[in-house]
Amino acid sequence: MATVGILTSGGDCPGLNAVIRGAVLKGETVYGQRFVGFLDGWRGLIEGEVMPLDRSSVRGLSHEGGTILGTSRVGPYTDPHGGAENIAKVLDTLQVDAVIAIGGEGTASAAKRLYADGINIVGVPKTIDNDLDATDYTFGFDTAVEIATEAIDRLRTTGNSHKRCMVLEVMGRHAGWIALYSGIAGGAHAILIPEQPESLDQICAWVTSVKDRGRSPMVVVAEGFRLPDMDSAHSTKGLDGFNRPRLGGVAEVLAPLLEERTGIETRATVLGHIQRGGSPTGFDRVLATRLGMAVTDLVAEKGWGHMVALRGTDIVRVGFDEALANHKTVPVDQYQEIRVIFG
Amino acid sequence: MATVGILTSGGDCPGLNAVIRGAVLKGETVYGQRFVGFLDGWRGLIEGEVMPLDRSSVRGLSHEGGTILGTSRVGPYTDPHGGAENIAKVLDTLQVDAVIAIGGEGTASAAKRLYADGINIVGVPKTIDNDLDATDYTFGFDTAVEIATEAIDRLRTTGNSHKRCMVLEVMGRHAGWIALYSGIAGGAHAILIPEQPESLDQICAWVTSVKDRGRSPMVVVAEGFRLPDMDSAHSTKGLDGFNRPRLGGVAEVLAPLLEERTGIETRATVLGHIQRGGSPTGFDRVLATRLGMAVTDLVAEKGWGHMVALRGTDIVRVGFDEALANHKTVPVDQYQEIRVIFG
Amino acid sequence: MATVGILTSGGDCPGLNAVIRGAVLKGETVYGQRFVGFLDGWRGLIEGEVMPLDRSSVRGLSHEGGTILGTSRVGPYTDPHGGAENIAKVLDTLQVDAVIAIGGEGTASAAKRLYADGINIVGVPKTIDNDLDATDYTFGFDTAVEIATEAIDRLRTTGNSHKRCMVLEVMGRHAGWIALYSGIAGGAHAILIPEQPESLDQICAWVTSVKDRGRSPMVVVAEGFRLPDMDSAHSTKGLDGFNRPRLGGVAEVLAPLLEERTGIETRATVLGHIQRGGSPTGFDRVLATRLGMAVTDLVAEKGWGHMVALRGTDIVRVGFDEALANHKTVPVDQYQEIRVIFG
Amino acid sequence: MATVGILTSGGDCPGLNAVIRGAVLKGETVYGQRFVGFLDGWRGLIEGEVMPLDRSSVRGLSHEGGTILGTSRVGPYTDPHGGAENIAKVLDTLQVDAVIAIGGEGTASAAKRLYADGINIVGVPKTIDNDLDATDYTFGFDTAVEIATEAIDRLRTTGNSHKRCMVLEVMGRHAGWIALYSGIAGGAHAILIPEQPESLDQICAWVTSVKDRGRSPMVVVAEGFRLPDMDSAHSTKGLDGFNRPRLGGVAEVLAPLLEERTGIETRATVLGHIQRGGSPTGFDRVLATRLGMAVTDLVAEKGWGHMVALRGTDIVRVGFDEALANHKTVPVDQYQEIRVIFG
Repeated sequence: MATVGILTSGGDCPGLNAVIRGAVLKGETVYGQRFVGFLDGWRGLIEGEVMPLDRSSVRGLSHEGGTILGTSRVGPYTDPHGGAENIAKVLDTLQVDAVIAIGGEGTASAAKRLYADGINIVGVPKTIDNDLDATDYTFGFDTAVEIATEAIDRLRTTGNSHKRCMVLEVMGRHAGWIALYSGIAGGAHAILIPEQPESLDQICAWVTSVKDRGRSPMVVVAEGFRLPDMDSAHSTKGLDGFNRPRLGGVAEVLAPLLEERTGIETRATVLGHIQRGGSPTGFDRVLATRLGMAVTDLVAEKGWGHMVALRGTDIVRVGFDEALANHKTVPVDQYQEIRVIFG
Repeated sequence: MATVGILTSGGDCPGLNAVIRGAVLKGETVYGQRFVGFLDGWRGLIEGEVMPLDRSSVRGLSHEGGTILGTSRVGPYTDPHGGAENIAKVLDTLQVDAVIAIGGEGTASAAKRLYADGINIVGVPKTIDNDLDATDYTFGFDTAVEIATEAIDRLRTTGNSHKRCMVLEVMGRHAGWIALYSGIAGGAHAILIPEQPESLDQICAWVTSVKDRGRSPMVVVAEGFRLPDMDSAHSTKGLDGFNRPRLGGVAEVLAPLLEERTGIETRATVLGHIQRGGSPTGFDRVLATRLGMAVTDLVAEKGWGHMVALRGTDIVRVGFDEALANHKTVPVDQYQEIRVIFG
Repeated sequence: MATVGILTSGGDCPGLNAVIRGAVLKGETVYGQRFVGFLDGWRGLIEGEVMPLDRSSVRGLSHEGGTILGTSRVGPYTDPHGGAENIAKVLDTLQVDAVIAIGGEGTASAAKRLYADGINIVGVPKTIDNDLDATDYTFGFDTAVEIATEAIDRLRTTGNSHKRCMVLEVMGRHAGWIALYSGIAGGAHAILIPEQPESLDQICAWVTSVKDRGRSPMVVVAEGFRLPDMDSAHSTKGLDGFNRPRLGGVAEVLAPLLEERTGIETRATVLGHIQRGGSPTGFDRVLATRLGMAVTDLVAEKGWGHMVALRGTDIVRVGFDEALANHKTVPVDQYQEIRVIFG
Repeated sequence: MATVGILTSGGDCPGLNAVIRGAVLKGETVYGQRFVGFLDGWRGLIEGEVMPLDRSSVRGLSHEGGTILGTSRVGPYTDPHGGAENIAKVLDTLQVDAVIAIGGEGTASAAKRLYADGINIVGVPKTIDNDLDATDYTFGFDTAVEIATEAIDRLRTTGNSHKRCMVLEVMGRHAGWIALYSGIAGGAHAILIPEQPESLDQICAWVTSVKDRGRSPMVVVAEGFRLPDMDSAHSTKGLDGFNRPRLGGVAEVLAPLLEERTGIETRATVLGHIQRGGSPTGFDRVLATRLGMAVTDLVAEKGWGHMVALRGTDIVRVGFDEALANHKTVPVDQYQEIRVIFG
């Protein structure tokens, strides 16, 4: 009867608790596995700090946001007390036979190295930005899209009442999936993503065209989008040569520029941390539960070095190698497909 | 420049308006197609009753439930004024070059026959029950799952307060997808679907086991589930030999039986039409919009006899033949996968 | 330093946990009161079954539906082991100095008698039906209205798509507040409440008038509404003289009658237990928290025999006598005010 | 048969459309009034730009956010083309007998002057900040509280996972009602409002105390709150003497200060325009509908110079004078009541 340690690492994501619950329920029932949770991601593993995890401790967790295990950005190799040797000792001391690491690219990368260094480790992919290539979707993404979509629905009505252009900034540092999906869902008139440059002229053309049809423009922008000329715009000197405060996010840079150029009153909203908190959508709970259940099969079959993933409607397994081969950004053709109806 | 007629047929489904909007926006912009809408499904096509559909008429539709075209259960061959010959005449009179039929199995089946009879027709799959094999998911399904999941979340707290067993009946006459997904998402203790028989004894065992752990049992049942002995239970004579009123749905049959057998106070809720109404989830709006946009490609390429579908994250096209080859029910192994943690 | 026992009695209601939390936080901090919770309402008090209640046990409770103390319909005088004498002994044994009873009319009535019999007891009014005269609103009511309103929003779109009349049954056995408020909020075309008789002819006239304007009628009916001729309709013999199954609620009786008489396809939905479960609205959380905090003032001042209540925006105190003097039903003039726009 | 012109003025607010619908439905049905809508607030009145408003134009409006009439910040006396004389001419030309002005303090103030100048005008109070003394609540406020409460619920889970302090900035320039109510509802550990100064030391003490109990602090701050020492903090020089970018809102000033002082990682979220958009809550729709209906009574009775308002559960009428007498801020005692449980 194996003892399995679970950890959640990196940015918080709705569905983490559902993964934990799925793993514990199935692992206990089907395989007789026992579980402990490492606290605060890799930190708990490095320092050997654990909490017991049994059926009663995961009770009712599927609808809870966050992670009962806590999370941190500590890495197993970057931390001074980390390293495979130390971790092997901790596992030995705690009599933990295997590790389930739930995390993003950094976690998969560290897990791959730990596996190479002899640790019995498997993974569950997690990124709210949906930018892991090995899986069709990551849990948490759907919840973020839903929250952003509701925000667009709300902003649209107030934009219309005031005849304003509304700019909503959503998450997505390197991949624009949340902006793309929520923008489509909310009927945005322009969607700006890190992968695809658009000039200020082009954005203004879209905004003006919407206004000319008597509507209020809605622009959704991923936090990682940059105007070609944005480094200067983002600095303390504005396009007009006057000093201007350096602002928080790209929406707060974009909004005054759009207003200046188009003459349309424009307001920025930065959605922020709300996107990664709270109760997951049904879709994310199902995906997370299925991944959690499936990862116990991996453990039972000693499929170290692999993680579980979604392909179509199936849960499959992929090697850490394969999972890390590509960063999944929005493909040009998928962006172009929707871009034709902007404005 | 083609004129294209759109119709929505069969049961209402969140996302229909988003399909219509996606088609009109892309068809107009990219292909210069013109659109009209047939009113109330096939009835409008048979009787030649149309409404104009242009950019302004689909404004802001992505978040609206229902269908602005109306729907009905009229069939193009079953209606006395139907038939391919008549329909061809109507299309000719209206100068409509092609038909986009948004509907379920019945619609696809009729469309296939119309195509064989020479009508330029393409399709968009629609079934809230998610039981079309050609596509990974149908729009509307995710919304129904979300609504059912929220209902489970609500019922759970009141079940716990009263120490009651709660039984929720959701849609699914022949396929248990909504029950399966919402049951997983809501952490149900038993999920009962049409595809998989379960005895009353088994269900009582799950319910009792939950109660024995000090929790309040939550049972999700698809409307199409039948107990092996349910025909008699469903009749006017109850198991105790006394007359009993014939009740509405399976939940209303199951609840008193569970209460009788387990001694646990049990309450039934039938979710009903709420599941197919209202604003679609972000997921469904994206899927519906993408399908609507893609079906205009089919029209532009004269891909008559095909429909668009979701495979993984891609929109693909499948022939009506293929789309109708199999009914997508919950596979035994996917049910068994989750069944192990019931109780 | 007083020890205070809290109990929640009668039907579950969103906000109970927020009351408990408010009382414990303020009572501990301001008055140094200590708290225990009686389990399952009066049962826990009669049997002396308690759980500790301190700051950490009420952590994060404001947004949780249900009651962590459990509830039941046991009464302190109706139960064979009840009675003031026994209860006084239990309190003495447990060294509990005062009781906070959170409940509806029955609870207030019992509390009044216990107070007369010498028990140190104060109350917090609770009824999801909002029918207590002493307070402008009871917590839980706003949540129920919100849930019913969302259901109407959903049913409206599917009603429109199918050109159906939709009938929604909401809670309200003796008072039609939930129907009235959700019906107004949802823009219903007829609202039927227990307090106001309406003939089938009148309801059909409203429904037909809506249909004649090209819209889909939406009827909201409180569970306690009865047609003048409903006892017969509700029996096994229908108006047409044929046998007909006895159905669950008034909506299931009304819908076929409306369809029969008006010729408009009509569908019934019974919202049921969903209305009393799940996370409370912000309004209800604030009201419940304020009541919970205020009731500790009552305890500190030994204001036995009183309960806290909402008047305008103020929390006031009223004697159990006064609280029970009148049942708050929908006044005729308030119903007539909205009735003029039915149809 | 009077013709009545309606206008909506000032900041957008959920429920405006429900007021318009309520007025038109009752005014037409009961009093035979005819309605037109002035576009974009006072601008439409000054320029005589109107849209027809009848039963069909207010169809289904109760659940729609925003205002179909549009709004602006134009004032009837501040605009060069304004003034009572000009407005009287416009009304005469359009044959409009009376004006219903839906707006906040500025609107009431202007309406009072127009009334003194002989215009037949009545009012409906509107302020999302709930700071009008004449009425217990204004519509839109409950929706804003609900949205802010949901945001707190989401931020709490992600705060817990990361062991961060979360700071949420909500609306409220001069009155802290939204912060107070959402903070209570969400179980915030500190609520900061414009009416009540709190020192950075005090806030840090609360935050630290929460952290010491092993929880993640949640701070809700109204946009109008200022630290005693905030002017300097808000400048380009931080407390540490180093240059620091001037940031958007108070949350963005407060968060780094809290992090610096307490050593707890802290994140700010500014909720912004989302709070005033989208579908109103049931409570707001009922309040708005009742106000809209009641204002037609005022018109019918020629109660010029009055507005309708909520007192307890009743809709009453108050003179513009009285309505403007006091600004309704959070009273010290109501703040102190909740402040005792901070930390």
